Formats: sequence, structure tokens, C-alpha cells
Amino acid sequence: MTSSVTAHPEREGFALYGYFRSSAAYRVRIALHLKGVAAEYRFVHLLKDGGQQHDPAYRALNPQELIPTLTHDGHAIGQSLAIVEYLDEILPEPPLLPKDAVGRARVRQLAYAVACDIHPVNNLRVNLYLRDAFSAPEEKRVEWQRHWMALGFAAIEEWLSRSPETGRFCHGDTPTLADICLIPQLANARRVALDLSPYPALLRIDETARAHPAFAAAAPGAQPDAE
Amino acid sequence: MTSSVTAHPEREGFALYGYFRSSAAYRVRIALHLKGVAAEYRFVHLLKDGGQQHDPAYRALNPQELIPTLTHDGHAIGQSLAIVEYLDEILPEPPLLPKDAVGRARVRQLAYAVACDIHPVNNLRVNLYLRDAFSAPEEKRVEWQRHWMALGFAAIEEWLSRSPETGRFCHGDTPTLADICLIPQLANARRVALDLSPYPALLRIDETARAHPAFAAAAPGAQPDAE
Repeated sequence: MTSSVTAHPEREGFALYGYFRSSAAYRVRIALHLKGVAAEYRFVHLLKDGGQQHDPAYRALNPQELIPTLTHDGHAIGQSLAIVEYLDEILPEPPLLPKDAVGRARVRQLAYAVACDIHPVNNLRVNLYLRDAFSAPEEKRVEWQRHWMALGFAAIEEWLSRSPETGRFCHGDTPTLADICLIPQLANARRVALDLSPYPALLRIDETARAHPAFAAAAPGAQPDAE
Repeated sequence: MTSSVTAHPEREGFALYGYFRSSAAYRVRIALHLKGVAAEYRFVHLLKDGGQQHDPAYRALNPQELIPTLTHDGHAIGQSLAIVEYLDEILPEPPLLPKDAVGRARVRQLAYAVACDIHPVNNLRVNLYLRDAFSAPEEKRVEWQRHWMALGFAAIEEWLSRSPETGRFCHGDTPTLADICLIPQLANARRVALDLSPYPALLRIDETARAHPAFAAAAPGAQPDAE
């Protein structure tokens, strides 16, 4: 009996359900590329068919009907940050969090400032609810998005610019969970033409990160489902 | 020279900036009580003085101008979940996350379903923005809150009811990060009179948790700043 030889069997058997434009899926794509995982990508179109995330088959994997979902080893894991922490625990190299507890808290704080306080408030389903239940026109909904981004980015800019821990990336000179959240959020900001000039630290880190192969490979425009 | 004797010096020197009604501060209070930390509580009234979270002195600690903030060992940490993970790392007993990576992912997924997808969308500042920029009346804003809670709770109910990992608490028979997020969110749901009868697993866990001394001590009504 022959068996196939794989260099890194622990990096196989991952599938990611995502959508090129979802910044939450983008985070997980960055983490997968940083960890050297060649995941199988499965595409869930958030706008077609009334939203493929509401399909019963997808709902069985993720009852929140949100993307992304990672499947691995018989488990389905939703919530992008739960997925990234999982990847960091089962594949520790390269680490996505610093080793010291204070540094880990700093990185998580930066990450959650995006993942809790900017992203969900601006998510597609909130946008649709504002449109449908509040009859909010496109212009007011774009203003809404810019408002929460600007508030969050101002705080993150202050954290980054006043801390000696900030390096080429948000924490030191290698990518962490903070960059994994920040870079996709900056891509969203560009989509709504937010003026980013008040955030020089963010722009500098964004430029560094986007030149990194893992971030480049994970970018929305580089995905097979990109439109 | 004499020195004061303390039984648990590693559990001293913590201060929490919070507000009795904030469900994010409530999470951290539960974690502090579970860890046996007698933190000093400092009160930031979110409605008085135009919101004390916007005071320059508080802003210096937390540029997001959100509560809670934990100070410890010369560091100020914002974002409730960053604080809870920090506490769990520096004071490992009792653990707030399971030992296995899949279990940790499950608990974080449940926690983030509350902390990312329900709470920030319903936060005070969003409520005020809906009132001021969208002229949304009280009734529509309460409906908004109920909508996001009901969506999130339905998904969590499904996760909990279909998993053999669910025990007396969300994951097994001891409290984790998932319960730390869920119980304060259920308190918020009662404040807007959401019908909780579709969520029997949540109600059962809520009853168990609220009988636990750490959860009882952390409840909004038990705080010195309660109104």
C-alpha cells in the first residue's frame, strides 16, 4: 500500500467558507496564509439568491448565518477571531500573539476595537436593516459607516502612536491579530471613501502589511470569487 | 521594617473603571469575582456630565472613550474580552476557557456571537446616534435592540441545544468566557422586555449562573453605583 507524502500533514484538511469582500473572511485568509495553510476555499455569495449564508446547508454549519466558517478535523468553527485564535493554538508558528500577557492584551484590545466596535455595526445585515426598517437612503448609510470607522480609527491611531510597542506592524515588527483585523477594515474604509489622512500610523502599517505576501494573497481582489 | 501580609498578593492592585449597567463592565466583574480578585471599583457614569467616559482623564486611559478599563501593574487595558483573556492568563485558576483547542474555539465563538454581533450594535452610542442622526423614536430603537438580540440568541440557542459539550453552563459544568458574555446580555434583554421563551437553553443556563456567587456579586443591582 502506498501513501501520499505530505510535507506538512498538520496543515491539511482545512476549508474556509467565505466571500471575497467580507472583511471577517479576509482576516481568516490572512491568518491561513501566515500559517502556511493551503485551505480549500468555498464561496458563499452574500448577495446572490437572497444571501447564500441563509441556505439551510450553510446554516447547519453556522446557525448565525454569517461568514466565515472554518471546517477542520470534523469541526465547524464560526466567528473569525475564534478561528484565528484556534489556528494560533494548533499551529503556533509563526505566532499571531506576543508571548507576554500584557502584550497579548494590547494586541487583543486593538483587534477588538475593530472586530467589536467597528465591523459589526457596519456589517451588511445592519446596512440592510437601516435601509429597510429606517428607510435610510444610501447617503445616510455611508455616513453611518464612516462615522463608526472614524471613531474607531482615531482611538487606534492614538494607541499606536503613543506606544513604544508599535513597530513596523501594530505590535512589534511581525504581524499579529491586530494587523489581521486592521488591514481588512482599512480596505472597507476605502470602499466608502473615508478620508484616512488623520491616521498616519494606520496608513504606514497598512502599507507595510499589504506588501507582505500573506496579506497580498488574502486581499479581496486576489480571490477567485472576486467581482 | 514591617510589611503587610497578604494571602494572595498576585490578586491585588487591580482597578476596574465601569458602570453598573454596562454589560461589558458586568462581564469583567464576573471574571474578577470568579478569579477571587478584590478589585477597586471606579465609577464612570455614562449619562452624567455628557458622559464621564469622555472626560480627558478617562480618555488618557482609554482613547476609545468606552468602558470598561482595567488598570493593573502600571497598564491600562480596555476591551472587556481582552481584559478577561488577560485575567485568565495571569491567574489561571479557575480557568475561563477549556483546555482543548476545539473547546476553546467553541467557547470563544459563543462569546463573540454576543460580544461582536449583539452588544456593539446595541451599545449606548449607537442608540444615541440612531436618535440624533436618524431621528429614530424610542420605540424604533427598542425594536432595533430586540431584533439583534433575537437573531443572536436564536443562533446561540441552536449551538447550545445541539452540542453534547453544553452542560450546566455553556460549556461543561463550570463558567467560561461564554457565560461571562451571555448572562449580562440576557440582563440587557430583560431591560427591553424581549420575549426569552424561545431560548430555553439560555434561560436554564442563566438561572444556573445567576445562582453562582461570582455572577450574583457582579450583577448590576449589586453595585455601589446602581440607581
